[in-house]
Formats: sequence, C-alpha cells, structure tokens
Amino acid sequence: MSNDYVHGYDPREAVRLQDQATTLVQLLHSDTVYPPARNVLEAGCGVGAQTVTLARNSPGALITSIDVSETSIAQARRAVQAAGFTNVTLQQADIFDLPFEPESFDHVFLCFVLEHLARPAEALKSLKRVLKRGGSMTVIEGDHGSTYFHPDSEYAQRAIRCLVELQASAGGNALIGRALYPLLRDTGFDDVRVSPRMVYVDSSKPDLVEGFTKKTFTAMVEGVRKPAIENGLTSEPDFDRGIKDLYRTTEIDGVFCYTFFKAVGKRV
Amino acid sequence: MSNDYVHGYDPREAVRLQDQATTLVQLLHSDTVYPPARNVLEAGCGVGAQTVTLARNSPGALITSIDVSETSIAQARRAVQAAGFTNVTLQQADIFDLPFEPESFDHVFLCFVLEHLARPAEALKSLKRVLKRGGSMTVIEGDHGSTYFHPDSEYAQRAIRCLVELQASAGGNALIGRALYPLLRDTGFDDVRVSPRMVYVDSSKPDLVEGFTKKTFTAMVEGVRKPAIENGLTSEPDFDRGIKDLYRTTEIDGVFCYTFFKAVGKRV
Repeated sequence: MSNDYVHGYDPREAVRLQDQATTLVQLLHSDTVYPPARNVLEAGCGVGAQTVTLARNSPGALITSIDVSETSIAQARRAVQAAGFTNVTLQQADIFDLPFEPESFDHVFLCFVLEHLARPAEALKSLKRVLKRGGSMTVIEGDHGSTYFHPDSEYAQRAIRCLVELQASAGGNALIGRALYPLLRDTGFDDVRVSPRMVYVDSSKPDLVEGFTKKTFTAMVEGVRKPAIENGLTSEPDFDRGIKDLYRTTEIDGVFCYTFFKAVGKRV
Repeated sequence: MSNDYVHGYDPREAVRLQDQATTLVQLLHSDTVYPPARNVLEAGCGVGAQTVTLARNSPGALITSIDVSETSIAQARRAVQAAGFTNVTLQQADIFDLPFEPESFDHVFLCFVLEHLARPAEALKSLKRVLKRGGSMTVIEGDHGSTYFHPDSEYAQRAIRCLVELQASAGGNALIGRALYPLLRDTGFDDVRVSPRMVYVDSSKPDLVEGFTKKTFTAMVEGVRKPAIENGLTSEPDFDRGIKDLYRTTEIDGVFCYTFFKAVGKRV
C-alpha cells in the first residue's frame, strides 16, 4: 500500500506535512482534547505531524500511533522525541489488520488517512472493533473539490484535478471530506456531527498566504507534476501555467479558499 | 436595469427571498448591529427580505432602504409595515445616481446586490461618496462556485453553471463572493475584513435541508429553467436531471455546501 500514497515519502514531503500541521493546528485540532489516562489510538500517523499536536493537547492521555510504513513510524518517533513527549507509543501496524484486542481504546483519531484508502468504510469498521462502546471516533479530511480562488483560472483548476485523478487511480478519494457524514453513519457510528473548517486566505493574512496557500496547498499540487505529466493527465506548459495561477492568488488582490471537514461519531 | 435581474420579480421569487433570509439570518446578519440614532443606508433592498432583519437588529438606527425597482420598494414597504418597524424609510433610487448629499450616512449596507451589477466597483464608489469618513461599508454576497455536494453530480454542477452564465450575460457575477476583498480594497476602503459564512447541510440539520438546500438554493436554480433552455445553455432532460441530483443531496446520506462572504471596510 505504501507505494500508492500519492504524496510520496520523500523528505521534502515530510517538511510540507509539518508546515501544514503547524499552520492549521488551531483550526483543525484545538477542539480535540482527550482526558488523562484514556487510551487513544491514532491510526495512520504518517511522519507524526498530527501526533505531536495530539500529545500536546492531551498531555495526560496515553496515545498509540500506528502507520503501515515502518519508515514513517521511524520519522514520527523522532518528531515525538524531539518535541519531548513521553505519552506516545509508536508502532508499525495495518489499519485493516490491527494487532489490538476488541474494545482496547477509549477514542480513535484519524487525520488525512481515509482519503488515501480504497476501502474507507472497511477501515472505519476495523477501527470500530478496537474502540470501546461509548468511545469517540474523530476523523479529519480535506476536500480538494472545495478549492476556489480569485483570480479564477481554468489551468489552476485542471492542475488540482490532476492530483484528484492521481489519488483516485491510486485507490483514494481527494473529495472525501464532504462525504464524512454518510461514511461514519453508514459504518454504524451514532450521533455523528460534522463541522467544516474553511481556510479563507487573502493578503490581510500573510501567515496563511505563506503557510497555507503557498507551502501547503500549492506545494502539494506541484508535488504531482512528474506523475501527472507522465500519466498523460496534463502537458508541461498547462500544468506549469496552473501552478503559476495558483501562486497568482497569493498576490495582494488574490483570495484562496479551501475546506477541511471534521467528523466526530460515537460507538454505541 | 430591472429587467436584467436574473431571478425575476415574480411573487414566488419574493417568497423564496424571504425564506432565504429567515433561514440564514443568524449566519449572515447577527454580527451587524448599528448604534441608535445612526443613519444607515441599505442599498438594493429588493423586496425587503434583509430590511426587516436590519431593523430588528438595530432598532434605534435610522435606516434608509433604496431599490431601483418601484415594485420592489412597494413590497419592501409592506414587509416592513407588516413587521411593525417604524425606523425604516423606503425610497426608489438608483445606486449609480444617489439622491443624497455627500457624507449623509454613518454606515452603508449591501446584501446580494453587487452580484447583479455590471459595474460593482463603480457602485461601491458611488456609495462611498454618501458615506461619512470613518463610517463602515458592509457587503454580503454569495458565490455559486462555492457549491459542492454529495453525491457529486456533473448534471447538478452544469445546472448551477446555467445560473452563473445567465447572470453573467445579464452583466452580473455569481462568483463575486470570493472577490469582495480586492473589490473593497481597490475602491479605496480601509481595514477590509472578509469572513466566509459557510452553510454546511447534512440530514442531521433538517431545517437547513428544507430551508436552504431545497427552498433557497435548488429553488433558485430551478427558477432559471426556462431561460436556460431558451438560451441553449442546456437541454430539458439535462437540466431536469441536474435538479433531481440537487434534490438527491437532501436525502439521508446527502451533504450540501455553500459559502457566503461578508466584507466590512472603513471609509478613511
């Protein structure tokens, strides 16, 4: 599965994920706080970008973070150690074949994971099995179809679509954010609440212009330049024009919009 | 100009605008409160859907509401009288030829107006002239390009695009919400702050399913069926399939997203 991860595993990508988490921490994570002594499973922790935030916001919780990639787990371990947290256990494990007893965890947390899986509903069912009754499932996902900007650009929209199509051909779904409500509901979670987390960026917010529009979103689209061209989804000039137009939205009269979705459900 | 107003002036449309305002009142208007004895100009009040909310939220303010259409002003007058407000003066007037002295108003308020104008920047400049120095300009607009939903549907997206194209050929811009920041900035307003007001609807929110997705948004798209077909923008079966797919998003596993933008700037 690790080869299908659309963003790849190179060091620059790891930096981008860290940049992303740092910029969006408040927006996405500030309302996720687990009580002391509770067992929390973070599934698909990747390089630990969100793990550090989880550990910081819930210093008394006992966090187990897993990822299918041994390389990512090693990076996540270094990130957690560098941040000085001792309440995180890191472990290589597959969401579809979890090495835990049923009802082992009080809470389960997933961030930017389901979008990469061909069978997100089965992943949720597998995770539900290790979640205690009455425990919570929290899922955060983006939705690339929520992207729009000023000045508008067909080239930029097409460059984004390359990423959506590559993710789809790897079995994922870059438009999964809008579908979290039915996904949690259909996998048997109760009292499902979804809240959108819209990132609105104009030049009055220079930190978001740099940290989100440029370093997170446009860098992510730029990251698929090679596979997008190699797979015939676009031409070099068209893709480069799209990237140029995305950067154009970061100028003084530009605007950029993107929405993440956060869902919380309960296991009954 | 009144013939170009894309939604038309029929009674059903007036009801839809009222439905819309009632459902979205909190989201769009709760943070607009003008102090007692201040002179407020509401430009392009239409049938008075927002006028009543303005008068309710700022009972001590002296509100002057204008519209280019004498018919709309008459309807707005009835709406204001029916609601029992006495702090509103209604008057037929053209935004581009305002019958007021320079710096007559402490505040100016505009809601769902600029999207219908061919020269929104000139409208803002004209309104700025009658606004006192230090006074505020508040603008609320939608953005039909912010619409996405689950299940996704190319037909539904194309039906929405018919409305966008009809509005464009009437000289308007249905994607203006995202551009409010540069628009206010470029017309010389200071300290411009834009906040998105996203409407997220799933079946856990039955009031929004009815009041927004069905009665406001889908009804608005349905309203352009005839001109869209007559102008060759779509075929009957395609458009009807699009509307059916929009209603599909109101079922138990459906999700619907739309974003309004609210901008506030200061005249220096």
